[in-house]
This record gives sequence, structure tokens and C-alpha cells, in this order.
Amino acid sequence: MANVAFIGLGVMGYPMAGHLLKKGGHAVTVYNRTPEKAARWTREYGGRAAQTPRTAAQDADFVFCCVGNDQDVRSIAYGDSGAFAGMKKGAIFIDHTTASATLARELDQRAREQGLGFLDAPVSGGQSGAQSGQLGVMVGGEADVFDRAKPVLDLYARSCALIGPAGSGQLTKMVNQICVVGVIQGLAEGLNFGRRAGLDMEKVLSVIGKGAATSWQMENRWQTMLAGQFDFGFASDWMRKDLGICLVEAKVNGARLPVTALIEQFYAHVQARGGGRWDSSSLINLLAQD
Amino acid sequence: MANVAFIGLGVMGYPMAGHLLKKGGHAVTVYNRTPEKAARWTREYGGRAAQTPRTAAQDADFVFCCVGNDQDVRSIAYGDSGAFAGMKKGAIFIDHTTASATLARELDQRAREQGLGFLDAPVSGGQSGAQSGQLGVMVGGEADVFDRAKPVLDLYARSCALIGPAGSGQLTKMVNQICVVGVIQGLAEGLNFGRRAGLDMEKVLSVIGKGAATSWQMENRWQTMLAGQFDFGFASDWMRKDLGICLVEAKVNGARLPVTALIEQFYAHVQARGGGRWDSSSLINLLAQD
Repeated sequence: MANVAFIGLGVMGYPMAGHLLKKGGHAVTVYNRTPEKAARWTREYGGRAAQTPRTAAQDADFVFCCVGNDQDVRSIAYGDSGAFAGMKKGAIFIDHTTASATLARELDQRAREQGLGFLDAPVSGGQSGAQSGQLGVMVGGEADVFDRAKPVLDLYARSCALIGPAGSGQLTKMVNQICVVGVIQGLAEGLNFGRRAGLDMEKVLSVIGKGAATSWQMENRWQTMLAGQFDFGFASDWMRKDLGICLVEAKVNGARLPVTALIEQFYAHVQARGGGRWDSSSLINLLAQD
Repeated sequence: MANVAFIGLGVMGYPMAGHLLKKGGHAVTVYNRTPEKAARWTREYGGRAAQTPRTAAQDADFVFCCVGNDQDVRSIAYGDSGAFAGMKKGAIFIDHTTASATLARELDQRAREQGLGFLDAPVSGGQSGAQSGQLGVMVGGEADVFDRAKPVLDLYARSCALIGPAGSGQLTKMVNQICVVGVIQGLAEGLNFGRRAGLDMEKVLSVIGKGAATSWQMENRWQTMLAGQFDFGFASDWMRKDLGICLVEAKVNGARLPVTALIEQFYAHVQARGGGRWDSSSLINLLAQD
């Protein structure tokens, strides 16, 4: 049993922290910017709630963080009431936020200076994966730090792999999101085309769903996309944020992302239409003319 | 046992016609524009070779056609030496070519006028699917005509479904290709990004290959795309032709295809670089700057 702090009880962090306590039997202290949510969490799971990231992190062997973006991570990690100020030597800070590789390298550097371990560990699998403990965890950092953290991460991982040095987890998540949005846009154009052509889409999917066009998105989203159901899943706001990170990083590494850049603009259009909270499959809405 | 004609012994038609004879035990007469290929086919499988589509189609219960494009189909179907001129009343013309929905409706109309049956039945699954008899067959036409043809089509089909009236097979194939190229382009951008970011792509795929980014293309093409192997599979020339058909049809039905239209231009670029015969996954080549 370890002492664990979990900072950020959003749709992902809330159930993830729960697994650490319920499945892992760890002593979990939570912190959330909105304290009501931390109180709700302790009522549901037990454990303790702290008033600041710093107090949450005191005595913790592992400090997990799962918040919105680079700025959120900096605000909970740094400063007088930040987690780093409270952590003991040898403890490990694990960032599950999807954030920039630059931030990951910066956190890694700061952690080293303080004698802490650091892992960037963004996840895939969404809210349902977090709830069922079946996330994909993409990790950047040192091998010995990863080895110590892996048994804890496995409490909510379907797969958990060390990809390379600090930042590699974030870069891997970027590869994931770039692939995902290409699939979604192609699927959106294909489904909308088929619908406008008057095809029986159930029959269409019965054939094309078995060949070279298949994808997780096709299998899991074609029906909801055609039905216009988008009040679930991974919000377009978050996808646009993630693609923004990809585009910034692509300027660093020189990769060209012509379609990803276009789709980032499509999500801006979804947002402008009030769909920021819609699932990222709502790109199909932009194609409907009626 | 039926009398069957097969016109067009390309990489798809050659093994498909073989299944009709070997697996189905049908009496197969083949025709190919280049007669040497027809001679090779009869040496390999038996059956007969005809000098014109018309003579191939005489006495046939089913006349199959698998050629390059709309114009090729018209040239083997119409005219004095065309298949329609030789077909007996009640025989069925089945077009496996990926062609326009307009052509399918035109063939259907002409066939009706002559008391023939017609099915548009483009396939997916590529050369390997044709060889193993595991194609996806997307069919447009009348139900009673489909029911008569299905046992024969099943000789090389993994799945074979009637989607709707004449043209529906072609439109379904278009949906398939639109979805495929979105997946390929997203995958190309993701893989190229990851490589430029210095990631160990085998490790990256071990995680992202299990979640929302997965696709048939990712599973079957990520290694060949990164290795630059494109001397196999479905040629970029053919994919560009198929996307051209989609874009024409989209003007008819009003569907917007912003990314598909862009990718059609990317294939034009692949062709301009001499890659017309490269597999359609070669879109990744356009992203490499070195």
C-alpha cells in the first residue's frame, strides 16, 4: 500500500482516483479546484480531501494529476501551494493531462532539480475507459521511475507502455489524436455522402464494415453520427485543444499536418455553432446542408 | 452448373474467374482485351477463351465484367461486338468494375430494354481478397436478379449484400473509398509526425493500436508505410480514379467532401512524382521532407 495524491477530479480523474483506492487499496488524498467535487469523492470512496495541491502531495509516494491543459498543470504543480512544494524526495509526479511535450520536459527538469521522479502519462479510452479501468496509458520518462509506477498505473490501464524519455507520452497521444481525427472526418464524409445518395446505411455498413474501411470509429460511431447523437464521449472543445498542441509541436519537429490543420479549423466551426461539448464525431454536423 | 462469361482478366478478374470454374464448377468463357492473358488463363484453369465480348456472352446465364472504368465497360458492353449484342433473354450482366452510378443506371436501362438482368457489383478486398475468394461485394439491382446471382457471387465473396436499386453498389463503394482515404491520410500524418518526433513507433503502436485510433489501415499498413514499401496493394492511380467518381457523384447528390477533395489532389501529386502504381498508402511519401 502506498500513499497517493490525486489532483483533478474531472470526468477522467474522478473514477481513476477511485480505482487507486478501491482496486489498489492505496491511501488516497484528493484535491480538486472546486472543493465540492473532492467532498463528493471522499463520500463515495473514502480517503481524504486536501485544501491545496501541496498538502495533498505531502507524504505521497505518487502524485497524480489530471487537469485541463498546460496552464492548469503549472498552477497545481508550481508555487507555494503547489504539489512540488509538498513532495518528499524520491516521490513521483505523474501527469495524466493531455498537454504539450514542452511542458513534460519542463516538469521533468524541475522534478530532477528537486530529487523527484516524473512521468508524462496521457491516456486514451475516454470516460468509459476511465470508469472501467481500461485506459491506454502512454508514458514518457525514465525506466526505473516507470517500473516503480507501473503497478499503480495498471489499476486503470488496459495497456500501459513506456515509449521513451520525458515528453514521449505526450507525443504518442498526439499521434493518436492525429490518426483519430482523420478517421472521423473520412467517416463523416462517407456517411453523409451515403445518406444523401439515399442508401440504406445499415446495409452499407454490413459490407464496408468488414474491409479496408473499418475502424474503431466506424464500428462505434456510425449509428450515433447518423442519428445526430453527440451528447456523450470526447468533447470537441478538448479535441480542438489537443490538435492545437499537435500543431504547435509539428512546428518544432517539422512534420506537415495538412488535413489535421484543416480539421482543427472544422472543430473551431463546431465550437462556433455551439457544439463545443458535443462528441468529437460531431464533425458530420458541418456537412449537413439541410 | 451454369454457363458463365467473364470479361476482363486483370489482377481482380483473373482469380475471380478462376473461382467460378474451380470452386463453382461452372463452364467459364473468358474474354480479355489482350488475348495473351486469356490464353494464359485457359492454360491455368481450362474453360474457353472468346475473340469478342459478344461471342463470350453467347449462351451465358451470367456475364461478368471487371475492367478499368466507365469507358471500358461501355466498350465491352455495347456495339456490334459487345456483350449485350450476344446475350440471351433472361441472362444477367454483372459489372464488378468500380464505376459511376450514372453508368450503372444506364446499363440497367439498356439491359431492361433487351430483357436482360443487371447488377452493379463493385468489390472491396483488393488483389489478395480476389485471390482468396474473400471479397466484399456491394450490389445494386432488383432483388430477384440478385437472388439468382448470389450463389455464383458467393464463390468469391466474404460478404455480398444487395444495397438497393441499380447504382447502389457503386454508391456504396464510393462510401467505402471516402472512408478509406480519410483513414489513410490521418494515419500518414500521425505516423510521419511520430517518426519526426523521434518516437519508437513500435512502442507507440503497441498502445494506440488498441484504442479509438485503430483501423484496418493502421493494423495492416503502419509498418509498410514507415518502411516506404508501396509496391503492392491498391494503386494510387486507381484510388484517384475512384475519388474522381465520388466527386462527380457528390455534385449530383449535394454532399460536401472537403477532405476527400483535398486527398484526391494529394493522389494527383503522388502521380506527378511517378507513384501512380504505388499502393494508396503512399500518401505518407508526400509528408516526408528529407
